[in-house]
Amino acid sequence: MARIGIVGGTGYTGSELLRLLAGHPRAQVSVITSRAEAGQRVADALPMLRGRVDLVFEDPERAALAECDLVFFATPNGTAMQHAPALLDAGVRVVDLAADFRIKNLSVWERWYGMPHAAPALVDEAVYGLPEINREAIRAARLVANPGCYPTAVTLGLLPLLECALIDATRIIADGKSGVSGAGRKANAGLLMAEVGESFKAYSVAGHRHEPEMEETLRMATREQVRLIFVPHLVPMVRGIEATLYAELRDADIDLYQVFAQRYVNEPFVDVVPADLAVETRSVRGSNLCRIAVMEPQRKGVVVVQSVIDNLVKGAAGQAVQNMNLMLGFAETDGLDGVALSP
Amino acid sequence: MARIGIVGGTGYTGSELLRLLAGHPRAQVSVITSRAEAGQRVADALPMLRGRVDLVFEDPERAALAECDLVFFATPNGTAMQHAPALLDAGVRVVDLAADFRIKNLSVWERWYGMPHAAPALVDEAVYGLPEINREAIRAARLVANPGCYPTAVTLGLLPLLECALIDATRIIADGKSGVSGAGRKANAGLLMAEVGESFKAYSVAGHRHEPEMEETLRMATREQVRLIFVPHLVPMVRGIEATLYAELRDADIDLYQVFAQRYVNEPFVDVVPADLAVETRSVRGSNLCRIAVMEPQRKGVVVVQSVIDNLVKGAAGQAVQNMNLMLGFAETDGLDGVALSP
Amino acid sequence: MARIGIVGGTGYTGSELLRLLAGHPRAQVSVITSRAEAGQRVADALPMLRGRVDLVFEDPERAALAECDLVFFATPNGTAMQHAPALLDAGVRVVDLAADFRIKNLSVWERWYGMPHAAPALVDEAVYGLPEINREAIRAARLVANPGCYPTAVTLGLLPLLECALIDATRIIADGKSGVSGAGRKANAGLLMAEVGESFKAYSVAGHRHEPEMEETLRMATREQVRLIFVPHLVPMVRGIEATLYAELRDADIDLYQVFAQRYVNEPFVDVVPADLAVETRSVRGSNLCRIAVMEPQRKGVVVVQSVIDNLVKGAAGQAVQNMNLMLGFAETDGLDGVALSP
Amino acid sequence: MARIGIVGGTGYTGSELLRLLAGHPRAQVSVITSRAEAGQRVADALPMLRGRVDLVFEDPERAALAECDLVFFATPNGTAMQHAPALLDAGVRVVDLAADFRIKNLSVWERWYGMPHAAPALVDEAVYGLPEINREAIRAARLVANPGCYPTAVTLGLLPLLECALIDATRIIADGKSGVSGAGRKANAGLLMAEVGESFKAYSVAGHRHEPEMEETLRMATREQVRLIFVPHLVPMVRGIEATLYAELRDADIDLYQVFAQRYVNEPFVDVVPADLAVETRSVRGSNLCRIAVMEPQRKGVVVVQSVIDNLVKGAAGQAVQNMNLMLGFAETDGLDGVALSP
Repeated sequence: MARIGIVGGTGYTGSELLRLLAGHPRAQVSVITSRAEAGQRVADALPMLRGRVDLVFEDPERAALAECDLVFFATPNGTAMQHAPALLDAGVRVVDLAADFRIKNLSVWERWYGMPHAAPALVDEAVYGLPEINREAIRAARLVANPGCYPTAVTLGLLPLLECALIDATRIIADGKSGVSGAGRKANAGLLMAEVGESFKAYSVAGHRHEPEMEETLRMATREQVRLIFVPHLVPMVRGIEATLYAELRDADIDLYQVFAQRYVNEPFVDVVPADLAVETRSVRGSNLCRIAVMEPQRKGVVVVQSVIDNLVKGAAGQAVQNMNLMLGFAETDGLDGVALSP
Repeated sequence: MARIGIVGGTGYTGSELLRLLAGHPRAQVSVITSRAEAGQRVADALPMLRGRVDLVFEDPERAALAECDLVFFATPNGTAMQHAPALLDAGVRVVDLAADFRIKNLSVWERWYGMPHAAPALVDEAVYGLPEINREAIRAARLVANPGCYPTAVTLGLLPLLECALIDATRIIADGKSGVSGAGRKANAGLLMAEVGESFKAYSVAGHRHEPEMEETLRMATREQVRLIFVPHLVPMVRGIEATLYAELRDADIDLYQVFAQRYVNEPFVDVVPADLAVETRSVRGSNLCRIAVMEPQRKGVVVVQSVIDNLVKGAAGQAVQNMNLMLGFAETDGLDGVALSP
Repeated sequence: MARIGIVGGTGYTGSELLRLLAGHPRAQVSVITSRAEAGQRVADALPMLRGRVDLVFEDPERAALAECDLVFFATPNGTAMQHAPALLDAGVRVVDLAADFRIKNLSVWERWYGMPHAAPALVDEAVYGLPEINREAIRAARLVANPGCYPTAVTLGLLPLLECALIDATRIIADGKSGVSGAGRKANAGLLMAEVGESFKAYSVAGHRHEPEMEETLRMATREQVRLIFVPHLVPMVRGIEATLYAELRDADIDLYQVFAQRYVNEPFVDVVPADLAVETRSVRGSNLCRIAVMEPQRKGVVVVQSVIDNLVKGAAGQAVQNMNLMLGFAETDGLDGVALSP
Repeated sequence: MARIGIVGGTGYTGSELLRLLAGHPRAQVSVITSRAEAGQRVADALPMLRGRVDLVFEDPERAALAECDLVFFATPNGTAMQHAPALLDAGVRVVDLAADFRIKNLSVWERWYGMPHAAPALVDEAVYGLPEINREAIRAARLVANPGCYPTAVTLGLLPLLECALIDATRIIADGKSGVSGAGRKANAGLLMAEVGESFKAYSVAGHRHEPEMEETLRMATREQVRLIFVPHLVPMVRGIEATLYAELRDADIDLYQVFAQRYVNEPFVDVVPADLAVETRSVRGSNLCRIAVMEPQRKGVVVVQSVIDNLVKGAAGQAVQNMNLMLGFAETDGLDGVALSP
């Protein structure tokens, strides 16, 4: 069994890593850290893990992370860039679930994240951990930047169109919707159930950090200059992201379903759905799948893509485990074969 | 007190009319019909009205609707066109909350609603009941077609831009989201809470009946040919519609907030909100307001409008009462001054 | 118009007072304070009040509270007892929506609330503001202790049984359920929607502050020694309390519906519902009603009472306005005639 | 691999069986029937199973159920009693997830279920499938009656108290709360999200079919005459049952936690939680666990038990698979080791 470490285990991505790795046949969490909860039993903080996880949160300064084969950073932005270098030097592979290594353009990163980067040299080395575009590079990577949740849903929904140059890349609209777990587990009056239950709203309309990540990823993957307008919305539910994507088609008479189906025919975690079936977030809840439907409504020259993921799985911890599987030479689907929980 | 009739009182728009009219200073419901519930006390079927409404559902064939000053049809599509003519002949004013008289182009209507129209002559006469564009015509109308819920939110969100020719009218995206009460109170396994709770999805992506209504209304109001892509989504909440609207700006350097604020400065039920404030559906829950925010994110040349309403109030029964107030010469805000219920 | 002050206007009870008083015919909020938000426009913090409330939050030290006819304290426990004495001395009537004056037994109060009482003399004077038992005393009171949310639902559900000595008062079970707004608007990770959405749990099983309040109120109202077990639960919804009450009947063959109907026949805000109708929280959402149903299931000798209120209305701000109406000589229902919002 | 059949595969218990068995190491669904959906691909009706289940719904009359090792009936009440006899005669083991064989007392069963029993001889033979009381009998059984959802939560919560004669068995209160999936997937206007979202209510207060099942099971297991009052409630969430149980303690000074911990020390699917930890439904969502906490609040002589399960797993399909594992000689936890999905 590979020895796995998790830095920052009390948030939702950390606990979701624990859930997924509890059933993994070839990897085992041997160290988990939490500065605030050091000394507490994991199963006391996260009752769904009672009887399944016997670890105690350790202080990150003293934890034997360097003895792990691979360490996940499930920490706020700005943490992994401080601590990953030492682990990499010690020969540990690293997957950062935060944003520290997602954007190659340092000045863009620093503007959106509001801090200087502590490890600029590693930004170049890091591989963007979307297996559907970077599978081979991920296998070889020391350091993987796990993609953001919205960028995963949006990028997978646009890739086939951009790779085949089927759309005007400068006029893309991405209307994103996320359950509230995407905002994390911080005390925040704005995310109380009494504030966000039974209501719906857009947020960060003026600009969201995931927009430059999407634009850079799509440009690098397709060599097209991309101008994308992204507006995220908050849905009164816990898990799930849906992105509805709009773009102008360059040509009529394209079998859009076939374009997508062929692009993803060998992808274990992308399911292209015939347009007459529903694509709903609950159909992927708890699973690592991205489900996509595509059509040109009313033949008006605009393609509409629906893309759904579980923001904590394919949008975070599941994709991180998928990356780990690739990095450590396991089967890509190991530990990721749970069926979605629906209803 | 004006004598008011309601045809079809057991659905959500019917019960919302009863709620609003229970507090109206100049109008009183004197007749309410329901074929299925004839003979039952209204307050037994709708317990929130216990102690406030003392009516009994009557059979529509026998009810004294012709003695009313105004009758609301809160019925499925295709009913009002059968029964409105006789009432109009009897001198009764009529507001149809369904779609029978919303679209002037009969062939478009018949294609989308799948039936021949029973009263084509009245289609021409009917006034589209959006006071923000047709106030004076509504005052004089015998027959008002109350707008659809999505069209209300979308039209109010686009009008200022189109009237001032600020956007490319042929490239508009309307991403709509609605609470589940918009689907009505019919037994439908697809709308069980176990099916739609904790989940999010688009629906009717191939085409929704409200799209031609939006296009026709906007074209008539602005004399611009409009091509609009509309995708509705189902939100796991009961009440509320949010529409996020996207269009290409023709010019830079426009004070979008001022354009909207001036367009609606005298409108009692449209509130243009500075872009730094949240526009959430709960801020209008139970009230007749449409709240709108507008901005050009990142100066990318695309305007983003957020428009929120309560689908059962400004999107249905509240707007119907607003129309009634205009038709009967009351103050436009009579009975519509309740503050939104938030949280 | 009476001049009304609100101390602590940014929480849910404060904003609900503003909502209800915005429609009150004889009272107007003239001062509202918030230490944290002093200087901010109320309508910017509480967008549902845009266009309806033109006040600015004032610093409580400088606000002209002493010029009000009546002041509501919508503050955390322990605040009103500090500041009410000076206002009372200035001739201002006071309603405390927190717990400072709810329990006559000081040592019980100090044990449950964990602080010494700052105004013990006023505890005796204060009138417990449940109009259904203390209406005349409330009219004359300088200081009213507005009841807790659970105690309102539980007390109204048990009063007829205890007053008529129909049950064993020493074996009462009160199983309470509340929406999340009952916990207030404080940043608290435990009340994030991602923590409490799609889940249900009991809390404070070891003991809840409302239990001694219920026992004392029932004992004082009925002169019976009461032993009551109260377990509250958190429901994944925003508003509403339901209490299911169980007690051993002393006699068979009692028409329980009649007992309740007669007890509350003149009460404007208690609605006794025939047992075959549903008693659901949404039937009182936004309204000041308490709806109650009572039955003896299967004739097993145990009475079961269901009691529902809106925790923010009859359980807090609505009952406070009802008390204000009594204190200032207005009609008891002034400003409280809105129909519940359902669905 | 054992060959498994499912009769009635389109409801929630059927689809949950498919989800659990998709990951079972020793059993495989080879036949699934649905009269209404015969001929349709399972994965088209249940999109979360796309890529995981390749079956087609078959007509029950023609399906090769007799060739299965074990057949689950996930059908409405009254179906299994018609069809189980022939299968049993063919040597097939049967687990009925409905109520046909749960109650030994036929006249009680017929009164509550409103139909004559079609296979009374099998009622005696059937084993009540609660492994925590009938494990050895289940191993040997041809026919297992899978317990109701509420009875599972309530029985496991009361067993230790009754087996040790710690409580007055004639004064038990069971206040149950269930998510809406418990009501199944039938078109029913009363279970629309617009009807039950954002609301809470008791139902079947006059009497619920699970009450006689609980009383009989507890009496048979403990040889005590049991009088239990059971009131179920509907929670606005999809999955989960919580039961709060109240009973009079016969003696003081009992270590209730130890009583429960020892009773269930060897049970793989019952987790007794220290009373200071939360017992919430989400901690068991998707898993086969029953989590229980017990305490005597305020030392008032009343024990309070909280018991939570996922109504579709330990309350239905998971327990059925647990029974299957016992019947077919597999490890009891095979296919049931998924960690609960939380948040």
